[in-house]
Amino acid sequence: MPDQKDLVDLIKSLRAVRRYADRPIDPAAMERILDAARWTGSAKNRQPWSVIVIEDRAALESLADCGPYAGHLADAAAAIMLVMDPAFPAAAYDAGRLSQNIMLAAWAEGIGSCIAFLFPEENHQRARALLGVPDDREAWTAIALGYPEDERATRLDRSPSNVTSEVTPGRIDPGQFVHRERYSG
Amino acid sequence: MPDQKDLVDLIKSLRAVRRYADRPIDPAAMERILDAARWTGSAKNRQPWSVIVIEDRAALESLADCGPYAGHLADAAAAIMLVMDPAFPAAAYDAGRLSQNIMLAAWAEGIGSCIAFLFPEENHQRARALLGVPDDREAWTAIALGYPEDERATRLDRSPSNVTSEVTPGRIDPGQFVHRERYSG
Repeated sequence: MPDQKDLVDLIKSLRAVRRYADRPIDPAAMERILDAARWTGSAKNRQPWSVIVIEDRAALESLADCGPYAGHLADAAAAIMLVMDPAFPAAAYDAGRLSQNIMLAAWAEGIGSCIAFLFPEENHQRARALLGVPDDREAWTAIALGYPEDERATRLDRSPSNVTSEVTPGRIDPGQFVHRERYSG
Repeated sequence: MPDQKDLVDLIKSLRAVRRYADRPIDPAAMERILDAARWTGSAKNRQPWSVIVIEDRAALESLADCGPYAGHLADAAAAIMLVMDPAFPAAAYDAGRLSQNIMLAAWAEGIGSCIAFLFPEENHQRARALLGVPDDREAWTAIALGYPEDERATRLDRSPSNVTSEVTPGRIDPGQFVHRERYSG
């Protein structure tokens, strides 16, 4: 077992990366990321998911047009599209668990990531058609992957203006985040 | 940066643990877990959450009665209750990301975990009343934490019969999980 502080530090250090080096994902790293994804836990182990790995540039560019904040997909080295079975009530929660495993495993490989939600419904339908996703599955979450363009790529001020204008950096204080034994307002 | 394979292996090795040693959580480890939780990313960095750390035995036993599969909370060393703001459309997805960070950070500290969903609504309301959660927040997810009772504690056959009868162990094959470029049935 490695030093636990290293792993917790790695978890804490995950940030959205929207600027990518022009370099493909190492195939062995991609397989490790997909394996970490596949082993994600889910409610009753229902595994209400599969993923589509997209590396074709034209497809990435088309997907980038399927969401108001999805432009970073156009320059990503790859995207992992989550294909979810909405029949299960915890599917959105499980998708969040799956996403976090994918992004952390990528980060451990030195690969940056950024979620793109493909909404509203019209965009979602276009993305499904583009990737051949059947009617009984949903595909509203794509995770862009790529090696960070440079050491500033995790900074929010390197994001498009429609992102920086809507997002406040940092995190709430521990005193706001943690209650002890009872909710304390 | 630690060896990347260590984190990927840690991610892959996370399993639900429902049997706990009679030993409190190391306070420094708990603080690291809470810090990893606090740094979880969320849609537009809205951070639609806070958490309640519960270590009081009577409260844990009461919570264990607030869900059909929540019995393991009674013996846990602690629980982290997620308190979510349902006003944000991605709140369930973000709760999944938060949960995964908590469980992975705990696992890195040698601490097992298992989610308990507090449903149906009647149970959810009882849990909210117990913890003083206000009407505009939801609290349907508790994460039990504890050092594993023994080296077999991650095995599904060490779970209660109502869990083992409903859960299939293992994961789907890579060929079912991963599609390349397009969904392939």
